[in-house]
Amino acid sequence: MMQKRIYLDNNATTMVDPKVEKIMQPFFCEHYGNPNSLHKFGTEIHPALHDAFNKLYEGINASEEDDIIITSCATESNNWVLKGVYFDLIAKGEKNHIITTDVEHPAIGATCRFLESLGVKVTYLSINKDGNISANQVREAITEQTALVSIMWANNETGLIFPIEEIGAICKEKGVLFHTDAVQAIGKIPVDVQKANVDFLSFSAHKFHGPKGIGALYIKKGRQLTPLLHGGEHMRGRRSGTLNVPYIIGMGEAMSLAQSYLDYENSTILELRNYLEDALLKIPDVFVIGDRKHRVPNTTLISIRGIEGEAMLWDLNKAGIACSTGSACASEDLEANPVMVAIGADKELAHTAVRISLSRFNTKEEIDYTIEVFNKAVERLRKISSSYEGKI
Amino acid sequence: MMQKRIYLDNNATTMVDPKVEKIMQPFFCEHYGNPNSLHKFGTEIHPALHDAFNKLYEGINASEEDDIIITSCATESNNWVLKGVYFDLIAKGEKNHIITTDVEHPAIGATCRFLESLGVKVTYLSINKDGNISANQVREAITEQTALVSIMWANNETGLIFPIEEIGAICKEKGVLFHTDAVQAIGKIPVDVQKANVDFLSFSAHKFHGPKGIGALYIKKGRQLTPLLHGGEHMRGRRSGTLNVPYIIGMGEAMSLAQSYLDYENSTILELRNYLEDALLKIPDVFVIGDRKHRVPNTTLISIRGIEGEAMLWDLNKAGIACSTGSACASEDLEANPVMVAIGADKELAHTAVRISLSRFNTKEEIDYTIEVFNKAVERLRKISSSYEGKI
Repeated sequence: MMQKRIYLDNNATTMVDPKVEKIMQPFFCEHYGNPNSLHKFGTEIHPALHDAFNKLYEGINASEEDDIIITSCATESNNWVLKGVYFDLIAKGEKNHIITTDVEHPAIGATCRFLESLGVKVTYLSINKDGNISANQVREAITEQTALVSIMWANNETGLIFPIEEIGAICKEKGVLFHTDAVQAIGKIPVDVQKANVDFLSFSAHKFHGPKGIGALYIKKGRQLTPLLHGGEHMRGRRSGTLNVPYIIGMGEAMSLAQSYLDYENSTILELRNYLEDALLKIPDVFVIGDRKHRVPNTTLISIRGIEGEAMLWDLNKAGIACSTGSACASEDLEANPVMVAIGADKELAHTAVRISLSRFNTKEEIDYTIEVFNKAVERLRKISSSYEGKI
Repeated sequence: MMQKRIYLDNNATTMVDPKVEKIMQPFFCEHYGNPNSLHKFGTEIHPALHDAFNKLYEGINASEEDDIIITSCATESNNWVLKGVYFDLIAKGEKNHIITTDVEHPAIGATCRFLESLGVKVTYLSINKDGNISANQVREAITEQTALVSIMWANNETGLIFPIEEIGAICKEKGVLFHTDAVQAIGKIPVDVQKANVDFLSFSAHKFHGPKGIGALYIKKGRQLTPLLHGGEHMRGRRSGTLNVPYIIGMGEAMSLAQSYLDYENSTILELRNYLEDALLKIPDVFVIGDRKHRVPNTTLISIRGIEGEAMLWDLNKAGIACSTGSACASEDLEANPVMVAIGADKELAHTAVRISLSRFNTKEEIDYTIEVFNKAVERLRKISSSYEGKI
C-alpha cells in the first residue's frame, strides 16, 4: 500500500501549482535570454514579464506609480526595508527608533537585533492574551524619533490577522514609515496596499503556490530606500542582479491564481479548517489559539495538554501527515513555540503547540483521515505522558 | 523559413542545460517540502540537496570545513562580502581600506561607491593597455589599513584572466582578506579555491547553464562575515531565507556538467572561438582586445573601427544572432564599453566594441553563418559610416 501523503504545513511552504510550473517551463531552455539584453533573446521575454508584473500589481492593488521590486524572498525584502531605513534615516542621525512586535518572523526579529547592535532603539510590542496587538499600542509607542513601524499582516503561527489598516492610518497621521510583512496574508485574505496605507510590503511566492526563492518588496511611490543589493541598473536601480525570469513569471501566475481562489479559501477551506478544528476540540484539554473571527482561513495552532508538539508530529508523520510545531525557519531548534510563550503560556504548554495549515489542494477525505490519526496519537501519547494526569 | 536563433551572448547569461531542467523538475510540484521541516516532505529532499552541495564543493575544490552558502545571485554574494567586511572590520574602526579594480562588475563597483559614501577608502587599480592587472599592483596598494582585496577572476567583457593565484599568495602573506568574483571563470577554466588562497569567492549558476536567480558565496573555514540577510537559522545562520530547492539542485548539476565539459571548452570551443576570431580579423581595421593566452576560451571582444557597437548588434540581431556591446547589466544605458575606456581607447573606438561569447551549445555551422553575416554588416555599415574613411 502506498503511504499517504497529506500536506498540512502550508504556512511553511506550499506546493507549486502545476499551472505555475507550466507557465515557467519555456523560460529555462527555450526563452533563456537576459531581459536586459538588447537582442531578440532578451526582448522576446518582455511581454511575459510585463504580464507577470501586471498580475502582481493587481494582486495587491498597487498603483502604477508604485514600485514592486523583485527580491529573492521575503527575508530579503524584510532585511532590505529595515537596513534601508537604517541608512536613509538612522545612520544619518535623523531618527533612531523602530517599532515592531515580539512575534515577527525571524527575518524581522534578527535584523532588529542586528540594528540594536548598531545603536538603533527597537520597541518590541507584546501581543495580548488573545495573540493579537492593538493599533493603540502602536500609537502609544510612536515618538518623534520613530523612523519605521514594521508589523506583520498575519501571524505565521496562529494565523491571527493584525489591525494593519488601523496601524497604517496611525502611521500616516504621524508621518512615520510603515512596513508590513504580508507573507502569511497574500492568498488567504484580501491585501490592498492603498487601503492599508502601507509604505512597504513584503511577500514571498512560495507561500501562495509559487516557487521558493523569489519574493518582492512593494514600495509606495516616492519612497526612498537605500538598496540592499547594489550593482547593475536592474529594477530601476533599486535591486541589482540578473532577473530570475522563470520565477518572476511563475510568481505572477501564482498571484493571479491566489486572487481567483480567494473566495474558495474563505468558504471551502475555511469550512474544512473549522470542521477539523471542531473535531479536534472534542478531545479533552485541547485548545486553539486565537478566535476564528480574526484568523486567516487556513490556520490552526492547537495545544494538546500533556503532549510535546514534536511527539505529535512524529505520530502524524508516521501516518503520512505533515504539520509543524511552528515556523519551519526555527524548527531545527526544538524550542518552545514563540507565540505560545508570548501569550503567556507556561513552559510546558508552550511545547505542546501543533500548527496545522491547509491549502486549496487539501480534501475532506484528507481531513477525515487526519482527525482519525490525531485522535489515536493523542490517546497513545497521553498514556505514556509523564505530565498529563487526565484521562481521555 | 524559420528565423535562425544563434546565441553568442553567453557571458550575459546561458541556456539552462536540459539535464539541469530535468533534475529540477520533481522539486516543484512533487517534492515541494521545506527542507527545514521535520516531517517527511522536508527530510525527503535532503539526499538531493546533499548531492548538490557535494557537486558544488567538488567544482571549486572547497574543503569540507569551508562553507558554500547559497545566495540569490553573484550580485548578492558580492554585496555580502563587501558589506560584511565593512561591518566586521571597517565600521568598528579596525581598518578602512578596500582594493579593487576599475573593471569589476557593477555589483562590486557600485557597492564600493556606496561604501565610499560611508567613509571607506577604496583603491581602484587600473588595468594596463593589455587589459590586465599585475599582482604587483596589488602588493603596492596594500597598506596597514587594507581590510579586503576584491578582484574578479576573469573579466566579463574581454574574458581576460587576472593573476588570481599570485594575488591570493600576496594577500595571504600580508594577512589581508581576499575575495574574487569568479562568475566568468567557472565552467571556462579550472577554479581551485585552495590553490588560489581565496577567502571568499562568488559565483552564479546562470553563467554556466544553470538557472538565473541563484548563486553562492564560498567562505573559507573560520572566516567571519556579518550576514547580509538576517533571519531564521538557514545555512548555519549565515544566510536566511527558505532554500530554493529546485535551483540549488539545478546549480549542483550545472556545476558538475561544467566540470565535465571543461576539456571540451578548452579544446573544441576554444578552437571555434579562434576560428571565428581569425576570420573576423581579416577585415581591415578590426582588432581584438587581450591576447589569447590570458583569455577564457569562449570570449572575444572585438572593435570595428567606424561602426558603433549598437549598429553591429542591430544587423546581427536582424539575422538572428545575439551578441552584446558588453555587460547586459549596463546594456540599457548605451554607454561606452567600460573596459575599452579603461585600456585607453579613444571615445569613438570605445563605442565600437562587440562582445561575442560562445558556449558548448554552439556549432561550427552557426559560426560560419556568423562570419558571413558579420562581414556583410561591416560592409553595409562602413558605407554609411560618417567616421570611417578606409575602404573594405
